[in-house]
Amino acid sequence: MADKALYTFERSDALMDRARRAVPSGIYGHQSPALLTPGSYPSFLARGEGCRIWDVDGNEYIDFMCSYGPIVLGHRHPRVEEVVRKQLGQADCQNLPGEAWVELAELLAEITPWAGWVAFAKNGSDVTTWSLAVARAYTGRDKVIMAADAYHGIGAWCTPGKAGITPSEKADILTFVYNDLNDLRRVVAENRGAVAGVILTPFRHEAFHNSEMPNPGFLQGVRKICDEEGLVFILDDVRAGFRLNLNGSGEYFGFQPDITCYCKAIANGYPLAAGLGREELRAAAEVVFFTGSFWTAVTPMVAAKATIEVLRDEGGIAQMDAMGRRFREGLDQQARSLGLAITQSGPPAIPFMSFVNDAAFERNRLFCGECARRGVFLHPHHNWFLSAAHRERDIDEALVATEAGFKAVKSQFGG
Amino acid sequence: MADKALYTFERSDALMDRARRAVPSGIYGHQSPALLTPGSYPSFLARGEGCRIWDVDGNEYIDFMCSYGPIVLGHRHPRVEEVVRKQLGQADCQNLPGEAWVELAELLAEITPWAGWVAFAKNGSDVTTWSLAVARAYTGRDKVIMAADAYHGIGAWCTPGKAGITPSEKADILTFVYNDLNDLRRVVAENRGAVAGVILTPFRHEAFHNSEMPNPGFLQGVRKICDEEGLVFILDDVRAGFRLNLNGSGEYFGFQPDITCYCKAIANGYPLAAGLGREELRAAAEVVFFTGSFWTAVTPMVAAKATIEVLRDEGGIAQMDAMGRRFREGLDQQARSLGLAITQSGPPAIPFMSFVNDAAFERNRLFCGECARRGVFLHPHHNWFLSAAHRERDIDEALVATEAGFKAVKSQFGG
Repeated sequence: MADKALYTFERSDALMDRARRAVPSGIYGHQSPALLTPGSYPSFLARGEGCRIWDVDGNEYIDFMCSYGPIVLGHRHPRVEEVVRKQLGQADCQNLPGEAWVELAELLAEITPWAGWVAFAKNGSDVTTWSLAVARAYTGRDKVIMAADAYHGIGAWCTPGKAGITPSEKADILTFVYNDLNDLRRVVAENRGAVAGVILTPFRHEAFHNSEMPNPGFLQGVRKICDEEGLVFILDDVRAGFRLNLNGSGEYFGFQPDITCYCKAIANGYPLAAGLGREELRAAAEVVFFTGSFWTAVTPMVAAKATIEVLRDEGGIAQMDAMGRRFREGLDQQARSLGLAITQSGPPAIPFMSFVNDAAFERNRLFCGECARRGVFLHPHHNWFLSAAHRERDIDEALVATEAGFKAVKSQFGG
Repeated sequence: MADKALYTFERSDALMDRARRAVPSGIYGHQSPALLTPGSYPSFLARGEGCRIWDVDGNEYIDFMCSYGPIVLGHRHPRVEEVVRKQLGQADCQNLPGEAWVELAELLAEITPWAGWVAFAKNGSDVTTWSLAVARAYTGRDKVIMAADAYHGIGAWCTPGKAGITPSEKADILTFVYNDLNDLRRVVAENRGAVAGVILTPFRHEAFHNSEMPNPGFLQGVRKICDEEGLVFILDDVRAGFRLNLNGSGEYFGFQPDITCYCKAIANGYPLAAGLGREELRAAAEVVFFTGSFWTAVTPMVAAKATIEVLRDEGGIAQMDAMGRRFREGLDQQARSLGLAITQSGPPAIPFMSFVNDAAFERNRLFCGECARRGVFLHPHHNWFLSAAHRERDIDEALVATEAGFKAVKSQFGG
């Protein structure tokens, strides 16, 4: 079949010229278009609806990034938008919280069997950084163990950035090799009596890597070590939360942490983060100072309640899993029939695909760029996200673009 | 005149009982009702409109806290709400920013003569902490000087909380006595070659203190020291920004910083923070890793544009100053006529009042509690905020309640 006309980005590019003058790097951070495929992606978006997004030039995309996670029900989900509209007619950010503060905390504690309490914030980094303080306050110890190269946000203790961070700010962080229990045991033994806790994402999903699932028994082994050594086991579920299991990614992988950090998908795009903890940690959480200008705002909390209820009522988790599998199977078939070697990694709802022998992601940048110019928004070196709004026809339509992407890779790089 | 029936808080109290089970401390941080006057304040709010707020029991208040700063035009200002409603009909949190990213950055740079660029985030703490990293990246030095006991947010380097914070996290922070240029010179001299910058609020406004204005020449002296020593001068305008001068609190006090941190009032309650910097600091800002899940969301940016435009078009800054002066004069007259010694501090738009010889704020807790039960929302040991929605009749109505508050203090504590 004939290719549809490839997208162009005049208005995006003109805005980006202005952005480069007004903002450092124009657009910085994880959403930087410089991390995509220059020339093949827009830099500014205008509208979203379900699993579709439109850029400022009017180009339409099937969205497989979901705002890098937050959009879990699809853009502008009617039930979420309705409670938001209603709430904005009453109040949002006030001197004190609204009733939703209590209702949402109760709902999160209810769906998370081991959790005794819930605290709210705004960024994923707010809660991951706070979780270390709670573990330290609880244990009276300073050191925290994380997996080497794991992404837990922009806290000085964990940021992947080097500029402007001082050695002291990372002095209490220890690292071990992900999926290696012996290495974790070594680090714990070498620092016995000094370690407050271990923080882990439920699977490895940092950018510029294939995702890596936990080995069988790994997370359960971490749990056992934490129990034996009196360490707080912190689950950073900021990126994976509300996509794998409504009761937390620990349930998906068969373990229970002591603290869970949520953000991104919790309110279908409205800004909210949450930290959940075991009852034993409540006193520690009560003495850690934790606050922000907009943290008791009501709108994101009613949005979160609605998001969780819709996910539960409409089987969103199973839908994302099924559509992720369908997409993965389609990609697999296409690559196979063209003789291209690919690696698919991560759970189906948070998938990633890369090319074998493509360490610098050059093939993937071409592939994703060709997809973008044909209306499918993927990312060459960051995991993708399904939403509950993706339907079979969206996946099948996306696979038309990916076939063109694969052919471009074959044509430029060979088989 | 007869006192109106004093407020009661049955529904608030019932919600607070539930909150205490679901959330550490029920409500934590700066909005904790435990910091107000127990028994005399609500714990949950339901609605806001202009300078009025209603709690979940239906009690109405004239709001002198303005959500601890964010509400600068009054709650649910029609022009802000209209652009928000329109934006939410298109998109909010997406894979890339919207056009408002550029427009707002340009507007902020335009109204801030010395600023070359603008970066966005979500919390005040995001930008104050980031500003240190930019100063460090620019100078290649690690130490930063702040005023002892100043509040710059919940970053480990500056949080007033002790629990869960390790000594290393504060190791690069030096302090001096606010308003004491000789003490600043001493700290700089003792650390020559190691200091990246100085961070200051435009006046001292930390809780549990009277506000303290800069001595004549103090901020200009800091500027001079920074110029002589090659230090980055960071203005933490999170709390005072958009209330004293639309072009920044530096203009109000007659100096120009190198970086300004904004948050709170920038978008009339919608969640946004911004860091503005001089052109020379752009390259440093470009290498500091800075990102968050909701930072490119469009709604707070259109709200910020509208907020700044309304403040400019309707003379909001002058209105807050005038109403703050009217309130201050009324309080002064009442206290004087009752023979009560009070201290009024801070600029009129961000005022504070305390009683002389009331170090533990016992008199102020009684005073503010009596005002709250009569429909005026003040705070016993945190500065207050005016909004552009406060009118003469609101101030005069508030002064009826404050008179009752003063009489209660006189009756309980004497003259």
